[in-house]
Amino acid sequence: MKFCSQCGKDVALTIPEGDDRERHVCLHCSTIHYQNPRIITGTLPILEDRVLLCKRAIEPRHGFWTLPAGFMENGETTEQGAVRETWEEARAKIKVDALYTLFNLPQINQVYFFYRGTLTDINFGPGPESLEVELFYEHEIPWQELAFPVITETLQHYFADRKENNFPFRTKDLIRPLNKPLIS
Amino acid sequence: MKFCSQCGKDVALTIPEGDDRERHVCLHCSTIHYQNPRIITGTLPILEDRVLLCKRAIEPRHGFWTLPAGFMENGETTEQGAVRETWEEARAKIKVDALYTLFNLPQINQVYFFYRGTLTDINFGPGPESLEVELFYEHEIPWQELAFPVITETLQHYFADRKENNFPFRTKDLIRPLNKPLIS
Repeated sequence: MKFCSQCGKDVALTIPEGDDRERHVCLHCSTIHYQNPRIITGTLPILEDRVLLCKRAIEPRHGFWTLPAGFMENGETTEQGAVRETWEEARAKIKVDALYTLFNLPQINQVYFFYRGTLTDINFGPGPESLEVELFYEHEIPWQELAFPVITETLQHYFADRKENNFPFRTKDLIRPLNKPLIS
Repeated sequence: MKFCSQCGKDVALTIPEGDDRERHVCLHCSTIHYQNPRIITGTLPILEDRVLLCKRAIEPRHGFWTLPAGFMENGETTEQGAVRETWEEARAKIKVDALYTLFNLPQINQVYFFYRGTLTDINFGPGPESLEVELFYEHEIPWQELAFPVITETLQHYFADRKENNFPFRTKDLIRPLNKPLIS
């Protein structure tokens, strides 16, 4: 951020009075521009014994497999956002069962939500951000070609929980070791 | 938003190519300025049979009672933010047990997290955003003077769950009726 979105003049990084951390503050109109983490919301879509995955058509991790998910929009709930992203990325309709996994990724200022749900029919296909959309049995999951750790963790929990037919809500903080890349 | 935070020139509300909703887009450098919901994170602090509440020193709902909570910051987890807010608003130290309630408030683009936890000692007091901080037994809770519906719901769940000594995670969407004010 270089300019004030309210008056167009220069901003500077400074600690406002009564605050304890640096903010972008307008040197002209004194507006404080807060920056906050963003929510990414998606689904774990199930059809009988198979899970739906999307091959990413965009960076980061172009060509890797992911669950349908994306940035939550203003005016919607986390569940509505998850259902919307499932349609946008996989052209799939889903009946949500429950919130299943929630991850904090503080180094990239993101909080991930995944809802477990069931596809309402067999129709699906790639939206503009996907190269392919496919259903996978557990033994077919491309574990080495998954896009993000949150995808791997959610799928691992699901296949373990399915054996018990019990799907408790889980939350975890994913802190990246300093010497490892984000995507590993 | 009136001006581009990257180049300081005018922005306009328009639907970017490939998108399906209006965004603030810079007419000069074409930067798209996304706006997303924000997370508010806090705690339900317990000391034996009592719950800690803060009387708000700021608007909205100045003078009403709340649980310590505030906007999640970049670089922290939802749990770390909740612990930080408990210190900032109530000068209280807390050992978190678990995430307890999660609320979507889509009409004001907010998602609320409350963590259940135990005060680690009897020391507490008002931070700059609180007028008073007090411990309340269930029969002392000022139900008519609570600041927000998310506070009322979290406290109601807690006192009901305490009878069973079982505190399941709960999530709920709070949709405001069109003819009712937000705070009622």
